[in-house]
Parts: sequence; structure tokens; C-alpha cells
Amino acid sequence: MSRGIWKYKSGGIPDELFIRGQVPMTKAEVRAVTISKARLTDAQVIWDIGAGTGSISVEAALTSLSGQVHAVEKEEDAVDLLKQNIELFEVENIKVHHGNAPEALKGLPAPDRVFIGGSGGNFEQIINHVYEKLVPGGRVIINAVVLETLSIAVELLKTLNFKDIDLVQVSIAKTIKVGKINMFKGNNPVFVISAEK
Amino acid sequence: MSRGIWKYKSGGIPDELFIRGQVPMTKAEVRAVTISKARLTDAQVIWDIGAGTGSISVEAALTSLSGQVHAVEKEEDAVDLLKQNIELFEVENIKVHHGNAPEALKGLPAPDRVFIGGSGGNFEQIINHVYEKLVPGGRVIINAVVLETLSIAVELLKTLNFKDIDLVQVSIAKTIKVGKINMFKGNNPVFVISAEK
Amino acid sequence: MSRGIWKYKSGGIPDELFIRGQVPMTKAEVRAVTISKARLTDAQVIWDIGAGTGSISVEAALTSLSGQVHAVEKEEDAVDLLKQNIELFEVENIKVHHGNAPEALKGLPAPDRVFIGGSGGNFEQIINHVYEKLVPGGRVIINAVVLETLSIAVELLKTLNFKDIDLVQVSIAKTIKVGKINMFKGNNPVFVISAEK
Amino acid sequence: MSRGIWKYKSGGIPDELFIRGQVPMTKAEVRAVTISKARLTDAQVIWDIGAGTGSISVEAALTSLSGQVHAVEKEEDAVDLLKQNIELFEVENIKVHHGNAPEALKGLPAPDRVFIGGSGGNFEQIINHVYEKLVPGGRVIINAVVLETLSIAVELLKTLNFKDIDLVQVSIAKTIKVGKINMFKGNNPVFVISAEK
Repeated sequence: MSRGIWKYKSGGIPDELFIRGQVPMTKAEVRAVTISKARLTDAQVIWDIGAGTGSISVEAALTSLSGQVHAVEKEEDAVDLLKQNIELFEVENIKVHHGNAPEALKGLPAPDRVFIGGSGGNFEQIINHVYEKLVPGGRVIINAVVLETLSIAVELLKTLNFKDIDLVQVSIAKTIKVGKINMFKGNNPVFVISAEK
Repeated sequence: MSRGIWKYKSGGIPDELFIRGQVPMTKAEVRAVTISKARLTDAQVIWDIGAGTGSISVEAALTSLSGQVHAVEKEEDAVDLLKQNIELFEVENIKVHHGNAPEALKGLPAPDRVFIGGSGGNFEQIINHVYEKLVPGGRVIINAVVLETLSIAVELLKTLNFKDIDLVQVSIAKTIKVGKINMFKGNNPVFVISAEK
Repeated sequence: MSRGIWKYKSGGIPDELFIRGQVPMTKAEVRAVTISKARLTDAQVIWDIGAGTGSISVEAALTSLSGQVHAVEKEEDAVDLLKQNIELFEVENIKVHHGNAPEALKGLPAPDRVFIGGSGGNFEQIINHVYEKLVPGGRVIINAVVLETLSIAVELLKTLNFKDIDLVQVSIAKTIKVGKINMFKGNNPVFVISAEK
Repeated sequence: MSRGIWKYKSGGIPDELFIRGQVPMTKAEVRAVTISKARLTDAQVIWDIGAGTGSISVEAALTSLSGQVHAVEKEEDAVDLLKQNIELFEVENIKVHHGNAPEALKGLPAPDRVFIGGSGGNFEQIINHVYEKLVPGGRVIINAVVLETLSIAVELLKTLNFKDIDLVQVSIAKTIKVGKINMFKGNNPVFVISAEK
């Protein structure tokens, strides 16, 4: 890690350091768990499907410094934010791809690690494509925030013969200052599902 | 990171890779959040107070490779596990100190980062000592699993003029295989409180 | 409510008042939410499928005092506990049926309310049978503790044209005394799914 | 229960049935747990301090039908909503008191049960007053949503010699429909603390 405005080696970039719009963002604590499930090394090909504001892409790229992150995103406003955040954190190893998965994945180099943050309703096609392209021993990490993805993700990973399927639900509550008091606020829970090919 | 049996640069060492006894351990997902709040760099002096089995010490040492971790633990059986895990992960930058905090902290070099995983009922004395020794800009990260620590931690951090006090509660549920079905199991929630001097 | 050792009108019977074995029990707080989703009246026919120790059956019977609860359970040791708890709380409107659902449901009077606490792997057959027998306007309340039930429950309820499908996940942490301190303990999360015919 | 638009004997009135403004409301699932900790009977004197929109008052009054609920609230807009909801549910046994606790509690008949939903920063004075007035064997149920209340509540209950102090944290996530998908949404966690005099 450590580049641009983030001078540290561990992740945990605070949410407010990212340029944000209306686009949903993987919050710091869920991001920490997600990255921890990826088992990154110095030089990996990493796909980030449904990259959104790019918080996962940025932290992955800062960890795998000689690696290459391919951030795929279909929404134009998210692509804009993604590019601004890449600039802000002075990350040079992220390539942005504007388009729908799995189409937008065609032509990308075979990945060692794949993050799936959003699937736009194409989860089954995406996971099939990912399995095909993933190098042996490669890992996929899925952040599910909707019931529909949760329901089919584990089943599809099993059917595709992924190994070491791991499902954790991350529920984060934090205190926010309201005047002089600290109020508990609950974030939306995220199911982090990971597996190895 | 990457040393011994852990070949990766991101954290997230699975719990079952550690040698464990009856000693409580910071589980992988909480560990990921805890480390992410520490903002580690390559060369820091890190205290791990109430180090237990050493899972935080090991991940911190593997991240701050030229740094020095001081793991302080009062229970003898935990000290044993700690040493076994240091050997297992081939980490050379952890020094183990068997003793009670804050006494056992006397004589240690001034820290850049302090993890407090257990306080043995001496939380107030420990946090006072930590504040005194911590370098300006240094960070403390407290994992509270009991109401008594939660109740006084934020108050004491405020009184001591710590900045950017952050409190997140991490609740992890995971599925475990029971025959052919995946059962949801809830872990104990942990309050991760961090602040900067 | 109010009968035998429970003198109150609201639910919330503490777990430790029930006679318990190794059989899993719906804990007090989840039970409160589950019963609240049922919308009980004074005189209803209620099925409790996978009744276990009978904590749901007992509270439902104490609420719908002129109603009739049919508690269906396949495990013999659970049936024993169930009967002991019925005696303990002096409830006269629970009938125990030892057998597998959906077979054991044949011959029961058409229900106004159906609790499904366990399905023994027959969830799809059970929910089909329940839908057929449930009176119009009747309600079903499913407590899912495994991923497999969660994954298909909402889908099947939708397919069967159930209305007002509601899914809440209840995660309870509580403090337990360890010496003089209060430790936070996380219970297993339960997904409470309810709907109306 | 069962009065006005709520025809049932168990609680669990859906949030959307209440008339709501900007005033925070105890959500249905937390309300179910809160009421379950109160152990209501047919005829009790019940105080609801910081009654807000009145969802607790209404469910308590519908359970303790021959009892008397005193709903105390300091904000004028909340008092208005409270009165509208009392009318909507056709509840005749709630008396509304506009004012600050503990002052507004003076002159009220000694309570069997006391709900504290909000304390306006006067928690310590309120709990002292409540302890003094509560009948022997009476119960207090505190819903804490801020760290400051959580921190002192258990301590003060202990100091005042309350018995059977019980602390549960209720974290509710629910799915909400967004187009055709069901998104998980996390509610703010509530700490429900109850005890007996």
C-alpha cells in the first residue's frame, strides 16, 4: 500500500477519503474483510466486476503493487468516480473497462483473483465465465447484498466444483456523533462468499 | 506479509492455520478490521497488549516487516501458543513479554501503534500508560468484548484528548457444514475502538 | 397467556424456564419476534411444524387460549421434552403429533397459522402442503437457520402466490456474567420469514 | 390486544400502520422483544418515558387492557403523533403527559412496569426516580440507542440493587424490494436492558 493520499501498508482507507457520488460503495470494514479473503500477492491479475466507486480496486491495486487490476463497471457515473479515485490515490495499476459483464470481460487476461461486487442480474453467466478463465488455485470473492445472489452463489460455486467455499455475513454498527452523544447506526449487512478454483 | 506457511501479502490468515488451545483468539474477520484500523507502515514499533494466541501480532509483524512487535501476555499457556505460532509463521520481528500490563510495558520502546486485546481489568491504567508513551500521531486500537471495557474506553480516550475516536461493532455470522446443509452460526460481537494521539 | 409457572400476558418466557435437553430451542427474543409476526387471535388452529422443545407451541397456546395448537415433531427425545413443557406450563390446548412432515400433517384440521421451525429437508413438500390447507388470509411463519431454507423459502412463497412476504434477520447478542464482568455473546442469527395466503 | 385497526391478540403491529412523522419510532421487531421483557398482565400501571410516536404505549395498552399506561413525552410534535395513534388504534387506557422526565413523572401513580425509550440526557435522575416509585417486583425496560446510556444503565441498575439485570442487543436486517430484487437493509441496533426491583 502507500501511494498518493494513503501513506500506509495496511488497508482500511476511511470511506470519506474516497470521492463519492450516489454510487454505492463497499464500506471500509467490509472492504477489509473482502480483501482479507482474497489472499493477494505482489503480482496478480485481478478482476473487479461491478467496481462502483473503486474502493476495492484501489485497495487491491495498492496491495498487489506489481499486479494489474481490471475494474469493470457498467454505469457511466460510477466509471467517472472510479477514474477520479484512481487519480486521487495515484494508483497506476488499474485499468478501467466501461461495460456489462460478462461481455466486458472478454479479452481480459486470465485472472488470479476475481472480486464480484455487482452482477447486474447476470450472476450466473458471470460466475460461469469467471470459473472458465480463473487460473487453477485462483480465488473468487463475492459481496452479496441481495437475497437473490446469496441464494444462488453457494449453489453455483458448488456446482462448478469450487473448493473451500466460505460464507461470512459482516454486520457493522458504528457510533456517529449527534451533538454530544454517540448514536449506534447499523450498516447494511454484506455476505462475503469466497472460494478457490 | 508472506512468510512461513502464509504466502500472501494481504492478511486474512484462516483461524485453523493457527495453533490454538483454550485461549480465546481474535477471529480472522475481526482481525482484518482491527488491522485495517491500525494503518501500519513498513517500520513501526507495535505493542500488542493481551496478545493471546498471537494472531494479531503475527499479522501485524508480517505487514510491518521491518518493524518490531512487542507481544505482552500474562497467561503462561497463551505465551506458549504465541511462541509456537511465531515459529509456525516464521516471523522474526515479534518479541514476547510474559507479564501483566501496565507493569510489563515498562522499558519497551515508545510505540507507533498499540493493540489492546485484553486488559485483565487494568484498562484504565493501561490506556493512561499507553497515551503517555505513544508517539504523537500514533494510534491505539482496542478490541472490546466486555461491556465494562466498552463503557469506559470511549470516555477515557476522550478525557485523554485522543483524536478521531472511531467505534465499530463487528458482528460476524458464518455458515458451517452440518452434514449436507449450511447452518448459520453467530460469532461473539467485538467492538473495535480506534483513535489517534 | 398466564398459566402454570408463567403468570403474565405478554410472551417472553425466559429460556431457562423451559425443560431443555440437547434439542435446539427457539430463544426468547427470536420467539418474541416470531410470535409477533403470527398475528394470533383468541381462537385459531395453529400448526407448529418441527416444534422441538415446544417453546413456540407453548407461547402460541397461551396467547390463543381458546385455540388449538398442533405440535408436530419427528425426533422422539424432542417429543418427550415437548410433553414435559406442556405439563410444566399447564397448557391444555396443544396436541402433540410424533411423525415426519408433511405425512404427519395429514388429517389435521385446516390451520389459520402455521409455524415452520424445522423441515427435516422436506421444506418444499411441507410448504406446498401448508399452502393447500391454510385458510384464506391465513399466515405462515418460517424460522430459517440454514442457508438452504433461506434460499428457497422466499422463492417458493412467491411461486405459491403468498402475499406480503416479509423477511427479517434477527441477530441477538447478550451479555453473560463471567466473574464480575459482562461478556458479549452472539447467538446464531435466525431468518424469520412470514407471509399471508 | 385487538382494538381499532389491529384485530389480533399478539403484538407485532407493522410500522407502516402507525402515523409517523420525523419522530423516531421503536420498530416492530425491537418492540416485540421490548414488550416480551416487560411481562405484562391484565391490569398494571405502566409508564412509557420518552414515548415518541407511541408504538410501545399502544402495544402495552392493548395487552394490559384493564391497566393504565402513562405516556410521557417532551417534544410537542411527538405528543401530537402519539395522540393520533391512540385514536387510530382506539385505545382508551393511555394518558399522555407532555413534559420532561423526571419532573413530568411527579404525581403519577406508582408503576408496575416502566419503559424508558428516551431520557433526554437525564437518564440518571430518571432511573433514580423510577426505582423509588416502582412497586416491589416491578420491572423496568430500557431501550438504549446511544453509547452513553448503554455505558451507565447496567452500572446504575446494579448500584440501585435491581435484580435479574438482562442486556440483549437486537440487530435486525430486513429485505426491501428494489425492483424485482430483495436487498438486505440493516436497522440501527438497539440494546434492550431489563431488570426487576
